[in-house]
Amino acid sequence: MSELELNCPLPLQYDRIVMAHGGGGRLMQQLLDTLIQPVFSNPLLDQKHDSAVFAINGSKIAFTTDSYVVKPLFFPGGDIGKLAVCGTVNDLAMSGARPLYLSCALIIEEGFPIEDLQRIMESMRRAAEQAGVLIVTGDTKVVEKGKGDGVFINTAGIGLVDNTIDIIPSRIQAGDSILLNSDLARHGIAVMLEREGLNFEHQIESDCADLSGLVRELLAAGIDIHCLRDLTRGGLAAALIELAATARQHIEISEAALPINSNVKSACEILGFDPVYIANEGAFIAFVPEAQTEQALSVLRRHPLGRQACRIGEVKSTHLRGMVTLENVMGVSRIMDLFNGEQLPRIC
Amino acid sequence: MSELELNCPLPLQYDRIVMAHGGGGRLMQQLLDTLIQPVFSNPLLDQKHDSAVFAINGSKIAFTTDSYVVKPLFFPGGDIGKLAVCGTVNDLAMSGARPLYLSCALIIEEGFPIEDLQRIMESMRRAAEQAGVLIVTGDTKVVEKGKGDGVFINTAGIGLVDNTIDIIPSRIQAGDSILLNSDLARHGIAVMLEREGLNFEHQIESDCADLSGLVRELLAAGIDIHCLRDLTRGGLAAALIELAATARQHIEISEAALPINSNVKSACEILGFDPVYIANEGAFIAFVPEAQTEQALSVLRRHPLGRQACRIGEVKSTHLRGMVTLENVMGVSRIMDLFNGEQLPRIC
Repeated sequence: MSELELNCPLPLQYDRIVMAHGGGGRLMQQLLDTLIQPVFSNPLLDQKHDSAVFAINGSKIAFTTDSYVVKPLFFPGGDIGKLAVCGTVNDLAMSGARPLYLSCALIIEEGFPIEDLQRIMESMRRAAEQAGVLIVTGDTKVVEKGKGDGVFINTAGIGLVDNTIDIIPSRIQAGDSILLNSDLARHGIAVMLEREGLNFEHQIESDCADLSGLVRELLAAGIDIHCLRDLTRGGLAAALIELAATARQHIEISEAALPINSNVKSACEILGFDPVYIANEGAFIAFVPEAQTEQALSVLRRHPLGRQACRIGEVKSTHLRGMVTLENVMGVSRIMDLFNGEQLPRIC
Repeated sequence: MSELELNCPLPLQYDRIVMAHGGGGRLMQQLLDTLIQPVFSNPLLDQKHDSAVFAINGSKIAFTTDSYVVKPLFFPGGDIGKLAVCGTVNDLAMSGARPLYLSCALIIEEGFPIEDLQRIMESMRRAAEQAGVLIVTGDTKVVEKGKGDGVFINTAGIGLVDNTIDIIPSRIQAGDSILLNSDLARHGIAVMLEREGLNFEHQIESDCADLSGLVRELLAAGIDIHCLRDLTRGGLAAALIELAATARQHIEISEAALPINSNVKSACEILGFDPVYIANEGAFIAFVPEAQTEQALSVLRRHPLGRQACRIGEVKSTHLRGMVTLENVMGVSRIMDLFNGEQLPRIC
C-alpha cells in the first residue's frame, strides 16, 4: 500500500546522531520510529498525539513534555522562557485539554549570567500567568562551561480534558475541513534572522503565543473538533504528513490558501526556505466537519490570534490514503514529503 | 529566631552561574530561594516537596520533574537511563503516590553514538517495566557538538495518591522517629570513582533503585508516615536540613547509627568526602510516629532494598527549631549545615 511505501521506517543509516535527527524532518522521524517508539511502545505513546491522554479515576488527564533549546535565547517576539510555557500549554490545548499545571526543569551552563536567568524566569512567570497555569514543581542542574549552551528548559504539563471531548488523529475523516488560525513561518524566520544577525527592513517577530484560548472558544461554540495540531518543528508540512500517515487519510492543501506575511515571504525567498516547513509557535490546524467550517472560522476570527483564520484544505476520499498533496495555483497537485536534512535546527 | 538566622536566603553574591549552584549545597539553595521560588511562588510550589500534590476532580495527583546530567553516562550499578526512571519514580513515591506515567525528553549532542542511545533507551524501558510505570510522551532535541554533553534526559512523572494519605514536611512533629532504609553514599562514590578512573580493590556500585515498593509496603502495613525524602543531591545532610527548616522542627541524628559500607567509608576517607553529604539514589528517610518504629523497621527489613533499615534519629522538642544536630559517638552534638562549595556536581 502506498502509505507504507512512503512512510515505513528505514533502517538508521547513521551510527552517530546528526543535527537533522532533531530537525523535524525525515531523519528525526526515523530515529523516533526505529529507536524510541518501539522500545517504549504502549497504547498511549502509540497514539502519536501531542499529549498523552489517559483516565485517572474517571478524569481525562492530558500529559506532555518538551525541552527547549532555542538559539538565541532571546529573539524578536519572545524568549526561551515564553516559548517553554506557550509550547507546552499549546501541546495540552491540542488535545482539547484545559492546561492546569507545569513543571520547569533548568539545565544551566556554568558562567551563564544570573541577570539573563532572572529575565527568563520573569518571562516564564508572565506567560504562565497569562495562560492561567501554575508552575508547581521544578529542578535545576548546572553543567560545566562548554557542556551546555546557556540554558535549556524542559517543561512538562498537565491538563484536564472534558469527558465529552475526543480530539485525536484517528478521528480525522474524509470530508473534514482543515482550518489554519494564522499566517505561517514567523517563528522560525524570526529566530533564524536573529541567530544570523541579519537585518531586514521590517522586523519579523515570532508568533509565539498561548493557543489554548482559541481552542476553548471553538469548543464552547460546539464545534466538533476531530483533531488539532500546532505547527512547530517541521512546520505545516511535518504536521500534515504525520497526521495523514497516522489517520491513514488523504489530505489535500491549497497552496494559494496559505497565508504568509509578505516580509516572511521575502525572507524565505532570499534565504531559500519553503515556509511550509518552517516552525511556528502560534499557529495550529483544526480538522472540523465540513458543515461547521464557516461557524468555526467566524469563532476563530473573533479572537486576536485567529484574525487571519482560513480554510486551507480538506480530507479527501481517494486512493492516496496516508499522503498529503499540495495543489498549486495552476491546479497541479504534488505529493508533500518530509525534507531529509536539517532545515532549521534549534528553533524551539 | 535561630532558624531564620541560619536559613534565610542571602543576596546572591555571584553574577554568573557557578557549578555549585547545582551542587545541592548552600549556593543552590540560595539560587532557588532568591531567584526561582519567589518568581513562581504559589501554595503548591511553596510546599517544597519532592512532588507537587493537587486534586483534580477529587483525585490526588502527584507531579514531579527531574533532569539528569550525570557524568559519566554509564557507571557501576546503573546508567543515566535507569537513573532517569528511578529518580522520578522515587520523587513520586516520596509523596506516597503510586507512580503511573512518565515523560521522556532527550537533549542529545551531535555525534553521540546511536548504539549508546539504544542502550540507554533499553535501560529506561527495563527500569520502567520493573517500576510498573508507562512512558507515554516524549521529546527529542539535538544540539551541536560542544553545546551539550552526550545526552541529558528529563523525565516528569505523574502518580496517584490515596485520599487518606498525607505525607508532607509540615506533618513532621516532635517525637517522630527517623528511619533510613539503606547504607549511605554509594551512588555518589560509584559515579565519582568511575568519572575519575579510580580503581579500588572492591568495586562500589550505585544504589540506584526504585523505592516505590518499599513505600507501598509501609503504607499497606498501616504505618502513619508523616514525611518521606529520598537522599539525592546533597545526601542525607541536605534532605534533613531542608526538612528541618520547612517543618521548623529540631532533628537530631546519631552519627553512630548511620550505616556506611566499609568500602564506601574507605573511599570517602581517601578522597576527603563526608558521606552524609554524598548523593544516594536508593536511600530514603521516613518520619514515623515513635510508637510505630519497630513495626515500620520490620516491614522495611523484609524488602530487599530495606534489609539494613535502622532508626537514625528523632525529631526533638527543643529550642533548636529549624536545625539539624548530629550527635557523635562521644555524645557531643554539632549543628549540621549545608556545605558552601561544590562537593560532587553532575551526580544525577
